[in-house]
Amino acid sequence: MLDERFMNLALNMARTTEGQTAPNPVVGAVIVKNNQVVGMGAHLKAGEPHAERHALAMAGRKAEGSTCYVTLEPCSHYGRTPPCADALIDAKVERVVIATRDPNPKVAGRGIEKLKEAGILITEGVMEKEAQALNRTFFHFIKHRRPFVTLKSATSIDGKIATSTGESKWITGPEARLNVHQLRHENDGILVGVKTVIADDPLLTTRLPGGGKHPVRIVLDHSLNIPVTASLVTDRSSPTWVVTSGNHNAQKKEELESAGVRVLPINAASIEIEDVLNLLGELGIMSLLVEGGGHVNDSFLRSGLFDQVVVYLAPLIIGGQNALSSFSGTGIERLSDGSRLKIKSAEMVGKDLKVTAVKEER
Amino acid sequence: MLDERFMNLALNMARTTEGQTAPNPVVGAVIVKNNQVVGMGAHLKAGEPHAERHALAMAGRKAEGSTCYVTLEPCSHYGRTPPCADALIDAKVERVVIATRDPNPKVAGRGIEKLKEAGILITEGVMEKEAQALNRTFFHFIKHRRPFVTLKSATSIDGKIATSTGESKWITGPEARLNVHQLRHENDGILVGVKTVIADDPLLTTRLPGGGKHPVRIVLDHSLNIPVTASLVTDRSSPTWVVTSGNHNAQKKEELESAGVRVLPINAASIEIEDVLNLLGELGIMSLLVEGGGHVNDSFLRSGLFDQVVVYLAPLIIGGQNALSSFSGTGIERLSDGSRLKIKSAEMVGKDLKVTAVKEER
Repeated sequence: MLDERFMNLALNMARTTEGQTAPNPVVGAVIVKNNQVVGMGAHLKAGEPHAERHALAMAGRKAEGSTCYVTLEPCSHYGRTPPCADALIDAKVERVVIATRDPNPKVAGRGIEKLKEAGILITEGVMEKEAQALNRTFFHFIKHRRPFVTLKSATSIDGKIATSTGESKWITGPEARLNVHQLRHENDGILVGVKTVIADDPLLTTRLPGGGKHPVRIVLDHSLNIPVTASLVTDRSSPTWVVTSGNHNAQKKEELESAGVRVLPINAASIEIEDVLNLLGELGIMSLLVEGGGHVNDSFLRSGLFDQVVVYLAPLIIGGQNALSSFSGTGIERLSDGSRLKIKSAEMVGKDLKVTAVKEER
Repeated sequence: MLDERFMNLALNMARTTEGQTAPNPVVGAVIVKNNQVVGMGAHLKAGEPHAERHALAMAGRKAEGSTCYVTLEPCSHYGRTPPCADALIDAKVERVVIATRDPNPKVAGRGIEKLKEAGILITEGVMEKEAQALNRTFFHFIKHRRPFVTLKSATSIDGKIATSTGESKWITGPEARLNVHQLRHENDGILVGVKTVIADDPLLTTRLPGGGKHPVRIVLDHSLNIPVTASLVTDRSSPTWVVTSGNHNAQKKEELESAGVRVLPINAASIEIEDVLNLLGELGIMSLLVEGGGHVNDSFLRSGLFDQVVVYLAPLIIGGQNALSSFSGTGIERLSDGSRLKIKSAEMVGKDLKVTAVKEER
């Protein structure tokens, strides 16, 4: 039970850093000696010290003979920082409690082996499920080399994003809209279709009261129709990437690039979601928030290449067969074609209901 | 605190009788003497003894000097049974604790007055909110003389009831479909449009493992197009009422009536929801479950004459702008035209999410 208590602290520390450690996982560490906490830390940002290093630094000489709780297997390789396993050995830690192994093929049990060889006692799997859920983006990325995709929509209870006459502002309340900014903060990239850019000229930045990390802004734009006057092109608050087809206009590409936009052509006549995700994976985007519109949502739906759906349901029925649905286009044809999801949570956000459904692993 | 404890028991007893007491409210009563329960009871069925009578019968002579907890003000008038206030006085009860007054104009404080005049101590308002919520149908009916209307739908997370190719069985799971039968059990009437009858030939009965009360089956049918071979016409498991316009076919009316169907013409060229609800109110329908289809749902939506929406959301995105929505027709044109609802609960029913939203009282 004490193991769970300290591991829970380590997990809580890691949780608060969600969105700031990419492409690294979030990790927390607690060092305990004689049942007293003598060090604690979390990994804050790629390139900076790992969680164990921060915790060891706080513990100083008290680390000798201590137990270190860490949410992810300590690394065994030289990356941007030296191996944490070595640091734990040097500090003469007596026992290391690990929530989950690091799926990164550069680690994958080797950190544990190294510690064991040095005579350190190892306990594995304490709160493993929680630790894996916390880094599901990272685990997903290591496994698939594609971003973890969240489809987000904000609708009436009956799934509409506008009335039959086109009125759409605002369906959900201010708390739900603020909550979306938290999602942006936690994702490496945000993706929309060019129609949304043309219709709404959105900023797609993270606007939380205390600031926040902007996601890379990604636009699917088959023919490079994005206006050079669009805020995404001119504001430079965060990188903007435009994914286009092999049929794009070369002159427009140059114009956009000279405005600071990164243009990413896919060498095909049409833009397939699978190609987009593979490309974004190569570019280090581990988590992607898709904010529509309806046709982009439909492309993701039909590709089956999404991992989570977040829907904010406003306490309102809009109705109307022709009123815009959150997923337009053709949708799935047979119920058996649809991705089976699992409703993970339903919680009130202001007056709206936030429903999170995740893809069931096959 | 003891008052709440005993009142809570009375409320729980009343709650279990939901759906079986119409047109009466559900009521529970507990009789306590020297801090010990000496009698308890609930009203079970219209025409049978009220809750206080059952509790007094159980208490016998121990009722003298006791406290009676009752969820609704004891009646003061001769209905199908003599006044409960008189019974409490005759039994020499010392104190009566009442959750809420009876809004029925035949009672409305007169029960309390009668008890006070007889020297009985009265405590009012203990768990009043819970007691009113329990009988919200009854309170609504007394106030509006129209049934409390629940609009029910079962959709994918994005509000679709079928794929673009028309596949619709089954979107929600067996637990959700069973839960709908509980709703049928709790409602006096169930209403559908004639198109649903023609397309699906539904039974609209309550099929719960332990049985259940069938609602009166009500069909909106402008021109009396209901087939005489429909299960609703032939099966006689529960009354079927067909509401039609002034333009109905008189011969078809006779055919239906000779098959045992009650035909209710509204003297107008079109069927207005307000007229339907006033008519059903006159006929003693205090609670009405609307099970669509899309156009009937739309009529209720646009009339604003509904009190609650229950949506079962299946963990699936169907998509498709042309895939059928739960509310079809035209819907509301402006967001400000929509009835503001309040999400009352969201709970898992099997793998589906049941969302209940209620109309905000103005």
